[in-house]
Amino acid sequence: MTTVILLQEHTTRDQLSDVVDRLSDVDKSPNVHSDTLVSTSASAAAARDAVGALPQVVHVQGLTADYPKAALGARHGMSKVRLGSSVIGGNGFTVIAGPCSVETPDQMMRTSMAVRASGAHALRGGVFKPRTSPYAFQGLGRDGLSLALEAREATGLPFVTEIMDLRDLPLLAESVDMLQVGARNMQNYSLLREIGSTRVPVLLKRGLAATIDETLMAAEYLLDGGNEQVVLCERGIRTFESSYRFTLDVAALTVLRERTHLPVIVDPSHAAGASGRVIPLALAAAACGADGIIVESHCDPSVAKCDGAQALPVEQLPDLMRRLRFAVASADRRLVLNSPAPQRQAAVLYGQEVTQKAS
Amino acid sequence: MTTVILLQEHTTRDQLSDVVDRLSDVDKSPNVHSDTLVSTSASAAAARDAVGALPQVVHVQGLTADYPKAALGARHGMSKVRLGSSVIGGNGFTVIAGPCSVETPDQMMRTSMAVRASGAHALRGGVFKPRTSPYAFQGLGRDGLSLALEAREATGLPFVTEIMDLRDLPLLAESVDMLQVGARNMQNYSLLREIGSTRVPVLLKRGLAATIDETLMAAEYLLDGGNEQVVLCERGIRTFESSYRFTLDVAALTVLRERTHLPVIVDPSHAAGASGRVIPLALAAAACGADGIIVESHCDPSVAKCDGAQALPVEQLPDLMRRLRFAVASADRRLVLNSPAPQRQAAVLYGQEVTQKAS
Amino acid sequence: MTTVILLQEHTTRDQLSDVVDRLSDVDKSPNVHSDTLVSTSASAAAARDAVGALPQVVHVQGLTADYPKAALGARHGMSKVRLGSSVIGGNGFTVIAGPCSVETPDQMMRTSMAVRASGAHALRGGVFKPRTSPYAFQGLGRDGLSLALEAREATGLPFVTEIMDLRDLPLLAESVDMLQVGARNMQNYSLLREIGSTRVPVLLKRGLAATIDETLMAAEYLLDGGNEQVVLCERGIRTFESSYRFTLDVAALTVLRERTHLPVIVDPSHAAGASGRVIPLALAAAACGADGIIVESHCDPSVAKCDGAQALPVEQLPDLMRRLRFAVASADRRLVLNSPAPQRQAAVLYGQEVTQKAS
Amino acid sequence: MTTVILLQEHTTRDQLSDVVDRLSDVDKSPNVHSDTLVSTSASAAAARDAVGALPQVVHVQGLTADYPKAALGARHGMSKVRLGSSVIGGNGFTVIAGPCSVETPDQMMRTSMAVRASGAHALRGGVFKPRTSPYAFQGLGRDGLSLALEAREATGLPFVTEIMDLRDLPLLAESVDMLQVGARNMQNYSLLREIGSTRVPVLLKRGLAATIDETLMAAEYLLDGGNEQVVLCERGIRTFESSYRFTLDVAALTVLRERTHLPVIVDPSHAAGASGRVIPLALAAAACGADGIIVESHCDPSVAKCDGAQALPVEQLPDLMRRLRFAVASADRRLVLNSPAPQRQAAVLYGQEVTQKAS
Repeated sequence: MTTVILLQEHTTRDQLSDVVDRLSDVDKSPNVHSDTLVSTSASAAAARDAVGALPQVVHVQGLTADYPKAALGARHGMSKVRLGSSVIGGNGFTVIAGPCSVETPDQMMRTSMAVRASGAHALRGGVFKPRTSPYAFQGLGRDGLSLALEAREATGLPFVTEIMDLRDLPLLAESVDMLQVGARNMQNYSLLREIGSTRVPVLLKRGLAATIDETLMAAEYLLDGGNEQVVLCERGIRTFESSYRFTLDVAALTVLRERTHLPVIVDPSHAAGASGRVIPLALAAAACGADGIIVESHCDPSVAKCDGAQALPVEQLPDLMRRLRFAVASADRRLVLNSPAPQRQAAVLYGQEVTQKAS
Repeated sequence: MTTVILLQEHTTRDQLSDVVDRLSDVDKSPNVHSDTLVSTSASAAAARDAVGALPQVVHVQGLTADYPKAALGARHGMSKVRLGSSVIGGNGFTVIAGPCSVETPDQMMRTSMAVRASGAHALRGGVFKPRTSPYAFQGLGRDGLSLALEAREATGLPFVTEIMDLRDLPLLAESVDMLQVGARNMQNYSLLREIGSTRVPVLLKRGLAATIDETLMAAEYLLDGGNEQVVLCERGIRTFESSYRFTLDVAALTVLRERTHLPVIVDPSHAAGASGRVIPLALAAAACGADGIIVESHCDPSVAKCDGAQALPVEQLPDLMRRLRFAVASADRRLVLNSPAPQRQAAVLYGQEVTQKAS
Repeated sequence: MTTVILLQEHTTRDQLSDVVDRLSDVDKSPNVHSDTLVSTSASAAAARDAVGALPQVVHVQGLTADYPKAALGARHGMSKVRLGSSVIGGNGFTVIAGPCSVETPDQMMRTSMAVRASGAHALRGGVFKPRTSPYAFQGLGRDGLSLALEAREATGLPFVTEIMDLRDLPLLAESVDMLQVGARNMQNYSLLREIGSTRVPVLLKRGLAATIDETLMAAEYLLDGGNEQVVLCERGIRTFESSYRFTLDVAALTVLRERTHLPVIVDPSHAAGASGRVIPLALAAAACGADGIIVESHCDPSVAKCDGAQALPVEQLPDLMRRLRFAVASADRRLVLNSPAPQRQAAVLYGQEVTQKAS
Repeated sequence: MTTVILLQEHTTRDQLSDVVDRLSDVDKSPNVHSDTLVSTSASAAAARDAVGALPQVVHVQGLTADYPKAALGARHGMSKVRLGSSVIGGNGFTVIAGPCSVETPDQMMRTSMAVRASGAHALRGGVFKPRTSPYAFQGLGRDGLSLALEAREATGLPFVTEIMDLRDLPLLAESVDMLQVGARNMQNYSLLREIGSTRVPVLLKRGLAATIDETLMAAEYLLDGGNEQVVLCERGIRTFESSYRFTLDVAALTVLRERTHLPVIVDPSHAAGASGRVIPLALAAAACGADGIIVESHCDPSVAKCDGAQALPVEQLPDLMRRLRFAVASADRRLVLNSPAPQRQAAVLYGQEVTQKAS
């Protein structure tokens, strides 16, 4: 049982001590997480009796599990997380798109330029790929990273990529805009602790059989280390149904909204397993209140080395964006397209790029 | 393995016989379902070789399971199912709302009038209730039906209710507009056969652990009996996640669209388990391409005898309808509100009703 | 919340009234199920305070759900259920075997004689078959029942068969020894109520997505009607794993032992999906404390009309029985083989039978 | 699609080349895993046509997924894996027991001595603990390892412990007898690759939502690195049922036996969630054909820092062993108790140990 006590923003040390002292009857060692947040293993009722009436106490809230820093009640407002020059969270809606894996200079650049042109906000692309089979394509590694950074430069869009091995953290932390922790590593606590010690924005994917509360406790590993730049990502859970790859759990969005201040985005691609299903699932996520989506898109899905079947052809990105506007509006939010300014410059760069690589 | 062969609309008997004859090499006893539909246990490739080139053959399609009459390829267009004076299917969107169970004259009438006023298209309400515990409230039965029929009369809206026992079929078939087969009875084949022998519109809910293909085969029991007025309903499946009651499977909508011509609506209420989650889930369903929703609503959820926690207060119906317009638009469809004409008359009737009951 | 209060066996009316009266502070309408069983919606703690000290009270137990008559604490001992001249429950172990469906005179008789010879205790065989597809073999119906009754006569073994339609109850109740309610109909409450009103022994299979508590509440429908001859059957649940048909939930046996006095047997065949897995699963069930098994066996699986892949060839029954002895012993129980006496006589009868049918 | 081709034991280089050459029609780059194992992406039928008739080919087998080295058909016999001076695999049965986590000198030594006395074969105990909450007890780390090594010394039993972080590999690889990869890290491929590069015996637990084939592919990461000392462990999967912690999937044992040569043991403790269920589940595993069990046991469960509810009190170990003999016999195997020789010497050591620590 975990209960959080949120204090007023300019609570003094004495006022904080007073809260801790008064809790001593119900919990000998409450946790002081910050100047404004205390948690206790006492029940919400007991904690409310002890400190609920103090003027410096904003509220006392019982949690469904042990995630005091991730809890909705742990902050005065909702979190916003930076992604390049923009943010995830608030009343906007963020679209991240790009290939499953970075494969070739041409593929990455063409796909990225199309993502840019569609008005999306950020690029994705795997360079270190976790694959179920040890014999499957495992990503281009450092070479892939270079290609991605060129695309980032050309488009002006921030870049998100997955980290699998904590030994890659120094390299990735200094070169990319957001680190993704994949579903398979959601409970790789060594990796979480290490990323938690940095201040790099991180996208934490829900494990394919992780409960909502376990996902929040995984986020807590990051937050506990001091890294507050955390975005959650629903990507489908494993159920008995096998007509698609995973069951996209849009209801998790509604529950997360009740429990956490962290932004939540959705990956409709891995659940879909087929590109024709991606747009409807993206729309469902937006209508259900997601803060954004991360979608796999490819300039030529038929030759993709990985997950081609579910990659949205870049030609369909404009239709996705058009329809997303309505879905986002239904959630009383607003989708603002990324400004198309850098496009032309990038196109030039892109032309040069291709020429150089081709020569 | 089941393969369907769709024929042109004015195919002659001889042309049909020709198809059957030519199939004899690959299947000795193909099924002739109608003048335009033949199915076979041969593979799609084999059937295509045998009859694919005939001018009377529109197409040859392999199915994922044995549901030839429910298959997308079984018809020349998508099905539309009548519900009172309106239809489910096509490019519109149908909203069915009302209480979990019919409880009192006042509750049913007040709720129904609010449903009518919101612009929704039909009423729901349980009179025979399947309950997990034998000691829980089992519905008002015939008395509940009378109350529901009064609300139907007052509002001019069609009425949908669940049938649990095939012995109730004569009574319900003549008095209600659509019969619902609940999730627990989705594979109660005796009940399905019996309803299949009527022509009453039927709403078939997916079982909580039924695959998409099993749902289609359950619908096939109805269609095979000759009842073509079948609407499917996704209502959440059972998974490991227990933060809500069931996992609403919006991806099933995308798969069903690939496999069947039957309309599909969504029940967001049973999955939600809490009223604050109902609107987001309804919006997700609409954005993902549903043909409509069936939602539990109550004039005073705090006193509901059944599922009060997930009942949408009727005051929130207008907001649901407002936001649904956007979500439906994102799916390139259109939500047309029910015309508000009968409202005033009904209000008068309703006033009398309440007066009479109160005296 | 349901709490049961068990009374001494010769509790008087006054003593019973005293219990009810004293409960009135915590529950205005406790349920008196019998002379020795009262249940209440009050908590176990509150009920214990109210009546726990009375000499006529054996114990007060809180339940995990609403199944007062099925609860372990509802009786002075464990239930035993009759099956022909033997019983299921106690320290013994019951083996029921036979084909998935009754197909031909020869198949039913040969299989049944082999079941008899192996020392098993009862026959199974479907005559009305619930099938996912409306076009699959649906059983021989009344003709199948006749064949089964001949095998019952010839072997002297009791016969268990499934009932799907409550209209078949009069026919089946008078001719078979135990009615099976299948997994698909576990929550067909009309059917359960109807069988509950008889005194025919019934085998209630757990639904493929039913929780343990829901299974107990389904049994409660039978018990509440007065039918105490109820045996539960674990037969595998639906999960994400698809290498076999269903996930056999042996742990359910341990939980059921904590919660109910009803006997529990296991069907290893439907979970296995392949005959080579059936014996190991049967042994696992026995070792884990099951009161018996019901296993599909066939004299010639290669020609079975239904579920042939998972049918144990009758030649393997002796090996099953041999190994079961060890597994049953590990559960501190004892497997007593059925006496082989009637065999020879039956063999004679069988010879005649075949001759007659052949003529 | 993966197909394996097993060659005779003394196949020459030329014969191997011949196999590869003949496969070139169906697969340009077959994988040569060793002198006796080749795999191809061609179908089994195509590979059989190409090389099935060669005398050096033992058999050609199609796999259900991409795990050529783990496949049953990849070897001439079943694998045996060393654990201290004994082995896992073959017709024996191995019992590993000990506390969830190493907590105190007294706890570890008392528990270990009781494990030894019961005739079990190895010790377990967590020193680095993966915990869902970052605030839960995370194990004693290096201090815990020291205590475990003392118990290993005192009992003469080999010691198994979990590795969570690849940076701990040098330390653990040189001090313990078997490394456990936990369920949460089953698809932590960096960790698997690193362990695969050593020759330390490893116990790979199935992820809680991992399919059987995914588990085999995770094992393939280890085997592909050259580490052949791999034991798999079924420990329960996540399903909708919540009466216990996880659903122990005994049927997985039957499927694994069809697909792999690797030994498979079972952890009945984490699935059970309550100590009263552990013995029945252990017996079920043994009867179903497991090569052993790993069970949590504690000298005083009431004070355990972790998972006390499911810890088998050491007093129950003798009963477990007694009953296991029958269950193992039902699987046509044999449980040989560990010889009790070192006990007395260890008891002396244990007395000294406690004295030293207490001073």
